[in-house]
Amino acid sequence: MSSISPLALPLPPLPPVAGVRLGAAAAGIRYEGRTDLVMAELAAGTTVAGVFTRNLCPGAPIDWCRAALAQSGGHARALIVNAGNANVFTGRAGVAVCEATAAAAARLVGCTPSEVMLGSTGVIGEVLPHERLTAALPALHASLSEDGWEQASRGIMTTDTFPKASTRKATVGGVAVRVTGIAKGSGMIAPDMATMLCFVFTDAAVSAVDLRALLASGVSQSFNCTTVDSDTSTSDAVLLFATGQAGNRVGAPLGDFARALDEVLLDLALQVVRDGEGAQKLVRIDVTGAVSDAGAKRIGMSIANSPLVKTAIAGEDANWGRIVMAVGKAGEPADRDRLSVAVGGVWMAREGGVVPGYDEAPVSAHMRGREIGVAVDIGLGEGRATVWTCDLTHGYIDINGSYRS
Amino acid sequence: MSSISPLALPLPPLPPVAGVRLGAAAAGIRYEGRTDLVMAELAAGTTVAGVFTRNLCPGAPIDWCRAALAQSGGHARALIVNAGNANVFTGRAGVAVCEATAAAAARLVGCTPSEVMLGSTGVIGEVLPHERLTAALPALHASLSEDGWEQASRGIMTTDTFPKASTRKATVGGVAVRVTGIAKGSGMIAPDMATMLCFVFTDAAVSAVDLRALLASGVSQSFNCTTVDSDTSTSDAVLLFATGQAGNRVGAPLGDFARALDEVLLDLALQVVRDGEGAQKLVRIDVTGAVSDAGAKRIGMSIANSPLVKTAIAGEDANWGRIVMAVGKAGEPADRDRLSVAVGGVWMAREGGVVPGYDEAPVSAHMRGREIGVAVDIGLGEGRATVWTCDLTHGYIDINGSYRS
Repeated sequence: MSSISPLALPLPPLPPVAGVRLGAAAAGIRYEGRTDLVMAELAAGTTVAGVFTRNLCPGAPIDWCRAALAQSGGHARALIVNAGNANVFTGRAGVAVCEATAAAAARLVGCTPSEVMLGSTGVIGEVLPHERLTAALPALHASLSEDGWEQASRGIMTTDTFPKASTRKATVGGVAVRVTGIAKGSGMIAPDMATMLCFVFTDAAVSAVDLRALLASGVSQSFNCTTVDSDTSTSDAVLLFATGQAGNRVGAPLGDFARALDEVLLDLALQVVRDGEGAQKLVRIDVTGAVSDAGAKRIGMSIANSPLVKTAIAGEDANWGRIVMAVGKAGEPADRDRLSVAVGGVWMAREGGVVPGYDEAPVSAHMRGREIGVAVDIGLGEGRATVWTCDLTHGYIDINGSYRS
Repeated sequence: MSSISPLALPLPPLPPVAGVRLGAAAAGIRYEGRTDLVMAELAAGTTVAGVFTRNLCPGAPIDWCRAALAQSGGHARALIVNAGNANVFTGRAGVAVCEATAAAAARLVGCTPSEVMLGSTGVIGEVLPHERLTAALPALHASLSEDGWEQASRGIMTTDTFPKASTRKATVGGVAVRVTGIAKGSGMIAPDMATMLCFVFTDAAVSAVDLRALLASGVSQSFNCTTVDSDTSTSDAVLLFATGQAGNRVGAPLGDFARALDEVLLDLALQVVRDGEGAQKLVRIDVTGAVSDAGAKRIGMSIANSPLVKTAIAGEDANWGRIVMAVGKAGEPADRDRLSVAVGGVWMAREGGVVPGYDEAPVSAHMRGREIGVAVDIGLGEGRATVWTCDLTHGYIDINGSYRS
């Protein structure tokens, strides 16, 4: 995949976040001529929270992070991420890789191994050559800087076609704080699967308990409302680090911090969808009138994951019949004769039948664009949700089906 | 789609089934120069059972059949099926079409409208021009014959690339009986969705109650264990008619009738998968060692519906890492470190890691074939299931995404 997604966004300016120094190096794990190892060092006192894949066959770094978070009580001093090898389904060897990597980083930073968070993305089932990784760490550590954001965002890419970052400001207890995140996904290479990794940093002081609640809430409205192909990776992880260097008082009200965090998470989640494999169109699906918010989300995801809906959008066909099908198969309460479907703001189907004489011209023009809006009203209750996906194109088949590993 | 699926099977010889006369006509509903209307007339005393889509936005013919089965107590004298228009999401007009069609057929056959079963497949959201249909019925009825099986199997096709039929013999109470079925699916045309229709006929005498139980059991092991693209149609239906003309005594043991029925249903279900949109390979997935049979089936379906697994198979890549991912996302109990995966009979991954030095040559040869076997052992219990799917290719995108309706 040499061409950049037509939905790509430019990297925003990324000012320093007090207490975060980061950078990237070429450890030669899998790729030639590019960085594949990222490190962030975090100020003493940094708190951390994580949200991880629900896949029951998680990679060794996921196991490591869960255990480390429990052991450290939500504190972290370093983050190490490699691209090119996911360290998944690697048995006892995979655990040893995590232990060796965390120990090496802990020695450099001067912390305990449980204060080192790990992330890996890439090929599955091959043992990660961690000696290359630990050999590259000292020089990488010596090169860390507060301006390493672009390097870090590029170093975690696999077949992503553009680097992904987002930043916002907030005010907490009268103190200006910053929230900055980087993410990768959902490219594909050789015999592995799309992996979504996201790392968010703030200089705000936030307790580990509060961080966990804020992250869970933010992820539920962002990453967990997106889908490219319905396949849940073994390595998905979102980590949120708070260095506390901004100087706000811990435990005092958090002002508009949650707003800034939610915006960063949603921005990054949509950048991942914009880089969805083969994506030509970004699709937003608004569901209203379901019996519950959870039900609305399930209906939205049923539409967003339907191959027939996604191929129709790729074909620039406002195929509301397939949307009706996807509503009906979601397993949520639905009544065909109360259902309404709009595309590009034009209600095409209402109360069990096509809207006679609806204006096709604006719908066709909308379908030719890059950002597609679908609205579905179930007509039964007050439940609502918004989810995002991309279209399903020949590019997806090219990326995932046209190689031999 | 002018080319025939590489997985197509020839139509088998289809001898008469006593009590069944059938045929096809060109009613001009949507297609030019081909048949699109099928009728079967059934002997007096014929019992019937049906299994229908679980989609909550079903087509009008599904509603009709459910109500008719309840009203008639499981008796039928006629079946009318049209291709080219699914009569789905057509509101009150769609109901009127069913009423008019059943009334016209009932007049010709001499029965009540509730003894007429209806099926429709094709475009969604357009009112079916039933006057064309009822106008064609008298001549069609006059042409019915006991040898109309091939005509009927062709007349219900939409963009199927080959006609689908299956037949078996059984012995019931010392009497030879026959079970013959036809099916269509899962082609695609204009703005509609893959629809699976299956009609099975036997000359055995079987009570409506027994028919229902036999059909439910048979479908659960055949059609409900297959998937092409995870999108459940609004029009799926399987109907089983028993004319009783073979002369076996109703209520006596049914001999090997269930075996014959199950074989016909599975044969037809696999023919539908062989004609899956864009299919180049037929994939069988055997799951063992799950905590329950239902859990094994959910794991099998998670693998069978994974776009990443299906594109890997299209690419002739024995990508066991993606299979591990699909097991882990199924939501069923799984333990990465007890999991084993085989492709083409070669165990490639076992107990949480790749099998060192497994023989790649037979696996690669297997992946280049038309029929792919995947086996997964969960290592937790005795639950087992087998499911079938096809690969995901550029052909699927061509069929479903490369048009404007």
